[in-house]
Amino acid sequence: MDASIFDPRGFRLSPFEADLCARAREFGERVLAPRAAQWDREASFPVANYEDMRREGWLGICIPREEGGWGADFRAYCLAAAEFGRYCGATALTWNMHVCSTLWTGLLTDDLEMDEATRATHRSRRALHYDRILREGAVFSQPFSEGGAAAAGTVAFGTTATRDGGGFCINGRKIFASLAGHADYYGILCTEQHGEEKLSRRDTLYLAVPKGTPGVAVEGDWDPLGMRGTVSRNLVFRDVWVPEEAMLMPPGLYFQAASRWPHMFMTLTPTYMGLAQATLDFTIRYLRGEQPGTPPVKRRMYPTKQIAVAEMRVMLEQTKALWFQAVSEAGPDPSKEAVLRALAAQHTVMENAAALAAKAVRTCGGQSMLKTLPLERIFRDSRCGSLMLPWTAELCIDRIGRDSLYEKGEAD
Amino acid sequence: MDASIFDPRGFRLSPFEADLCARAREFGERVLAPRAAQWDREASFPVANYEDMRREGWLGICIPREEGGWGADFRAYCLAAAEFGRYCGATALTWNMHVCSTLWTGLLTDDLEMDEATRATHRSRRALHYDRILREGAVFSQPFSEGGAAAAGTVAFGTTATRDGGGFCINGRKIFASLAGHADYYGILCTEQHGEEKLSRRDTLYLAVPKGTPGVAVEGDWDPLGMRGTVSRNLVFRDVWVPEEAMLMPPGLYFQAASRWPHMFMTLTPTYMGLAQATLDFTIRYLRGEQPGTPPVKRRMYPTKQIAVAEMRVMLEQTKALWFQAVSEAGPDPSKEAVLRALAAQHTVMENAAALAAKAVRTCGGQSMLKTLPLERIFRDSRCGSLMLPWTAELCIDRIGRDSLYEKGEAD
Amino acid sequence: MDASIFDPRGFRLSPFEADLCARAREFGERVLAPRAAQWDREASFPVANYEDMRREGWLGICIPREEGGWGADFRAYCLAAAEFGRYCGATALTWNMHVCSTLWTGLLTDDLEMDEATRATHRSRRALHYDRILREGAVFSQPFSEGGAAAAGTVAFGTTATRDGGGFCINGRKIFASLAGHADYYGILCTEQHGEEKLSRRDTLYLAVPKGTPGVAVEGDWDPLGMRGTVSRNLVFRDVWVPEEAMLMPPGLYFQAASRWPHMFMTLTPTYMGLAQATLDFTIRYLRGEQPGTPPVKRRMYPTKQIAVAEMRVMLEQTKALWFQAVSEAGPDPSKEAVLRALAAQHTVMENAAALAAKAVRTCGGQSMLKTLPLERIFRDSRCGSLMLPWTAELCIDRIGRDSLYEKGEAD
Amino acid sequence: MDASIFDPRGFRLSPFEADLCARAREFGERVLAPRAAQWDREASFPVANYEDMRREGWLGICIPREEGGWGADFRAYCLAAAEFGRYCGATALTWNMHVCSTLWTGLLTDDLEMDEATRATHRSRRALHYDRILREGAVFSQPFSEGGAAAAGTVAFGTTATRDGGGFCINGRKIFASLAGHADYYGILCTEQHGEEKLSRRDTLYLAVPKGTPGVAVEGDWDPLGMRGTVSRNLVFRDVWVPEEAMLMPPGLYFQAASRWPHMFMTLTPTYMGLAQATLDFTIRYLRGEQPGTPPVKRRMYPTKQIAVAEMRVMLEQTKALWFQAVSEAGPDPSKEAVLRALAAQHTVMENAAALAAKAVRTCGGQSMLKTLPLERIFRDSRCGSLMLPWTAELCIDRIGRDSLYEKGEAD
Repeated sequence: MDASIFDPRGFRLSPFEADLCARAREFGERVLAPRAAQWDREASFPVANYEDMRREGWLGICIPREEGGWGADFRAYCLAAAEFGRYCGATALTWNMHVCSTLWTGLLTDDLEMDEATRATHRSRRALHYDRILREGAVFSQPFSEGGAAAAGTVAFGTTATRDGGGFCINGRKIFASLAGHADYYGILCTEQHGEEKLSRRDTLYLAVPKGTPGVAVEGDWDPLGMRGTVSRNLVFRDVWVPEEAMLMPPGLYFQAASRWPHMFMTLTPTYMGLAQATLDFTIRYLRGEQPGTPPVKRRMYPTKQIAVAEMRVMLEQTKALWFQAVSEAGPDPSKEAVLRALAAQHTVMENAAALAAKAVRTCGGQSMLKTLPLERIFRDSRCGSLMLPWTAELCIDRIGRDSLYEKGEAD
Repeated sequence: MDASIFDPRGFRLSPFEADLCARAREFGERVLAPRAAQWDREASFPVANYEDMRREGWLGICIPREEGGWGADFRAYCLAAAEFGRYCGATALTWNMHVCSTLWTGLLTDDLEMDEATRATHRSRRALHYDRILREGAVFSQPFSEGGAAAAGTVAFGTTATRDGGGFCINGRKIFASLAGHADYYGILCTEQHGEEKLSRRDTLYLAVPKGTPGVAVEGDWDPLGMRGTVSRNLVFRDVWVPEEAMLMPPGLYFQAASRWPHMFMTLTPTYMGLAQATLDFTIRYLRGEQPGTPPVKRRMYPTKQIAVAEMRVMLEQTKALWFQAVSEAGPDPSKEAVLRALAAQHTVMENAAALAAKAVRTCGGQSMLKTLPLERIFRDSRCGSLMLPWTAELCIDRIGRDSLYEKGEAD
Repeated sequence: MDASIFDPRGFRLSPFEADLCARAREFGERVLAPRAAQWDREASFPVANYEDMRREGWLGICIPREEGGWGADFRAYCLAAAEFGRYCGATALTWNMHVCSTLWTGLLTDDLEMDEATRATHRSRRALHYDRILREGAVFSQPFSEGGAAAAGTVAFGTTATRDGGGFCINGRKIFASLAGHADYYGILCTEQHGEEKLSRRDTLYLAVPKGTPGVAVEGDWDPLGMRGTVSRNLVFRDVWVPEEAMLMPPGLYFQAASRWPHMFMTLTPTYMGLAQATLDFTIRYLRGEQPGTPPVKRRMYPTKQIAVAEMRVMLEQTKALWFQAVSEAGPDPSKEAVLRALAAQHTVMENAAALAAKAVRTCGGQSMLKTLPLERIFRDSRCGSLMLPWTAELCIDRIGRDSLYEKGEAD
Repeated sequence: MDASIFDPRGFRLSPFEADLCARAREFGERVLAPRAAQWDREASFPVANYEDMRREGWLGICIPREEGGWGADFRAYCLAAAEFGRYCGATALTWNMHVCSTLWTGLLTDDLEMDEATRATHRSRRALHYDRILREGAVFSQPFSEGGAAAAGTVAFGTTATRDGGGFCINGRKIFASLAGHADYYGILCTEQHGEEKLSRRDTLYLAVPKGTPGVAVEGDWDPLGMRGTVSRNLVFRDVWVPEEAMLMPPGLYFQAASRWPHMFMTLTPTYMGLAQATLDFTIRYLRGEQPGTPPVKRRMYPTKQIAVAEMRVMLEQTKALWFQAVSEAGPDPSKEAVLRALAAQHTVMENAAALAAKAVRTCGGQSMLKTLPLERIFRDSRCGSLMLPWTAELCIDRIGRDSLYEKGEAD
């Protein structure tokens, strides 16, 4: 079995974290790795993986312990998710969408402010939601992008919800909607529309739409470079009605979360952290002549390859350390410096995962381009992270630069 | 129509070169670009392209004018081939294999030494060969790699030819054999075996094997990351007999060429030079909202994107200038410095093509990952160049380093 | 003797260029190199070098042949200047200021438009100027920066000249004024003031101010990181009067030159091109145990060092090829692409010279930090190029990015 | 006052660490920063700083609490030393040599194995040593390099000690001996010579030589690029006698320490960690127009500069996180992975400190080259770290590459 990405001793993991990671790794090697090529080839959703995840309890990883889940906190989840990503990027990335629906409604919301009554209502609603996951094995997704500036966090989502007879009527369109057609519930971020008023980010709602609801349609093709198993087609909502209890968070809470708990946007990174590790894993195995599916030819004695491996390892250790530090700092009301560090970590993981894979291909050579080996898939998958909203590589750079030079309220 | 990669005025092209490039570009836009996605998707050989190339005369580009060809010299060919690569990497790369069979037997051989009689024989044999191309439209390939050190140029090819009744009997195996199953003739590099003697690089032969010859087999799957249209499966030769006239070069000449005309190994670069240009072409069109198949949304006003484009352009201009200089210096008996420059150019083109594509994906964002647009294919294709023997990126670095620090005959 | 930076055969130099470079290299090795440490240590002007340059004719390199000079054109000058820079950056950089005063008034102006009478006047004035150089050995400087946006070329110079009794009255201040206190004439770029009107770049004048003229003062300290021998202190002009014949160019001509002959701003690069070459020269000599002043210890056999040298060489060849291409394209009315290439070349030379020196220090190790060897000076000198106006590394990037994405007149 | 390099909350510092860092920072700003330019200009030892450090107790930072010191452990010391380095690299680097003599004899030795009697003797000897520091204010240095392979850790030190009448007779030569002529005791690493036997690393001794001892000579000039205040001249020992009690560690212990406590070789990094932070500090202050000694001109609004700052910050956060992780893992018998991480951290800090400074100069522009501002000194100082033995940047890469691909005892 592979070593842990984060050595429990060196990184001082809690026993819970160490155990969770060990199990995630075991699951990854046993279940995810052997099937990863299939979802990629077919651009199909990893249905079989989700059956195993459901059976073995992984869908409830972040559901609070008192509600029947495993109660993993942000860091524990991220560490386990990185181990998933190491063996199958597409599964880790879709699983993340699902887990976020429990993380946001659970741990995050517990850290935020609301009045007693609101909290009681929220608790009862999320119990319903958790029940669907734990009892019925429901899978949630989290369509986010709309093709405009909303996913970048600067304007309100254009998908709207209007109050309508004890519920909401939803209209709009989400693009790159991972799990489209495969999730049991779509956790939609949309804006509550108050008559003719301009949409406001403060009115963001987070609503669970059951997949069969009339008016929900999955559209468009799906044939991308990488992360093909995510099946991120377009989701269209035309006069889709959901009852009030579909609210996964009370009104106003998403806006509060986005402002006060910004590490919530880092949850795409564990997948890529895992891919980065997988890249070095593969390279070492391959150069040692130990990669299954290849002849036992050693290539490790060439200085050019040794130096390439060293440069890869330096890059990987930088990535690991910064990412670990950032996920360790997650929590409500982080300092400005901690937020900048989270952005730097996001940028680092996404760019370095791609850079590592590119270097691995160059170092391992021609054989590694073939689809019989996992490296070329990792190469394609890893290039996608930098492009994912709301914290694309470019937006991270923009914000780090500006916020490093301006204090709140300053302008020239 | 796109502008020339190398502006005729700025780079002082000859009228022949300027005209050839203009026609190559026109052909690329008209014929190659519209079909490029198909060969990639199917991993199929660009048969239709070769029909058009045959009809329009491109198969004879380097056949000497007095033999009925267009008489392009090394640089003229490279410039035209770069324009092909810009529109379809796989076609340019396979075409290169074909053209080399005429370039090596033509221009290169004319620069090398042989006695009168040998030259006369060579001339008559190559006339046959040229005839097949010009009259019958024959396509030649050039299987090279064998999975060992031979393709790197340090030991003799393991594929052997033994003299046998007025001809040769060939045995061996070539891997990554582009055009396998599609070329009319395989131009095989093999070593003449003299009884029990150890194989010597000096005895390299270059033999044309007709595709239907008994004992020739195409084996293995072909499902790689990029350059999928090259169909580079394995070629196996079991007691394959060819007559003496199959010799594309006289005995000893390939060895002489490899030593005295090293730029011959640069012919894989034009394809990647073209891909590098295509990457910037796409990025500019995309950010200007002018890429066919995308909505007319302008993204060019973001400083982060402007700076990325600037960095890409700087890298492209470095690549273009060094490559142009190196192909301009091609010829017999180059100085040591010129050879090191050729290696530096090879390294630069291969690595920078990949780096540019990676940056373009990051800069253009999520849409550019979809297979409806050419960028993701360019991203995959461009990663392959560094891995191609005999001048892989690593071998270039090894040799530049050593030869910069040691003069001929020095050791420590 | 060192080999030519640009091999005459490989780069197809004219016999004049080849001879000029050979002589520049000989001069550099014999005269410049032995004294380079002195000017650096003392931050003093290389007076002795200028005496030798004067005696051997180097001050008139770009004065047209029919006026008594050597008649080097733009590229020939740049190639020779690179050889100077290889041996003493500060001398090459100050010499460039002097040579520009002859290049702009000579070759450049000949390429531009003016009416017959104006040209006749200009010719008689520049004859005077050339006479001072060739007969009296006068050295010219070219103070440029003012600390605002003028040197970047976007607004008019703040130093003003007002017509006053058959001449001009100059007021203003130049910073980083190389040769301050040492040039015989300051070739001042300033703006002609018309009453109360706003200063306009179209009214830029180029006036030769003799060093002893009343009102001229040299101010400020000079203790910088690198290029210490340039003595670039502040120059202050308080009611300095010069006669009309001080005009080195007719009114309006500088503006025309800056618009139509943009390669004129590349003349700072030869110095850094030479430094880049010097860095690799040193590294190879040092690792071979052949650097004078060090024990004959060979360090060339370590793979890490061989690879570092290879990476340096690749970078140097990229730099050389792009720079050579750009200086070969210099001339009136270049295409937009040629201008972008010139900016890319400028950026490349400046950044790569610094990067190469940094890598050389790392590769050669501790000894190379000592002032007894030239590398640490080259490391300091080479960092300065990116900062020099008008084409700083940042401004090059800004402009390449914008102009790649916008055609003339476009806006969003 | 500047913010802590490592935010106590974000990095979960202990109260002792947080307090120590705060005091180090206060000392750095008050005492070290104002004088830093002086030592650099004069290449003189920071005598005045050492007087203040002595008075305020900094010389005993790592002396165990029960022996009268502050009892800082490895990480606590490193964090404080980084704050020193932020304000004066040369002081931090020389202080490190001194502190190591207490860290190695204290904390490290306590972690290692020796028999009771040996430990008792060691305790009594080190008490003497600590007494000199705490009572007499003695400063220790630690000459290491000898110009051969010994400092890289692969062969025995060539400086020898022969048992001689109740003590040792030392002969040899150390180069780059920081504090030469200024330390009160030189903590010499040398090899005990047993008759004619070949020197063995197992016989390394660590002896304290009082500066006035007959036979000790300081030789050579000292005029380097950076870290000029370290006064690292050559130290020569000719028949220098010291008594047995000069042993700072029992025989064999240094060898044990080097094998079992490899993080001991990371103590040069805090200085450079501090310099890296200082580079970003300066850049932000400068671009905000708040750097003392410069006019209040804001340059922060340029996108090119914002992006450069963002890239610097990403690099700094990577560096901080990896370094913090590595110094947190210091201790006896680390896992192989932890050692590779320490080497990666060393490489990262040294290379990134230099890269950050180079980028800062480019971003801040011409003014920042002047010696009136600290940046150009930081630029020079920071380039030195990669060259320092035993863990130079190159040796880190060599070892990471090899050890990643080979398990103990493997060979090909």
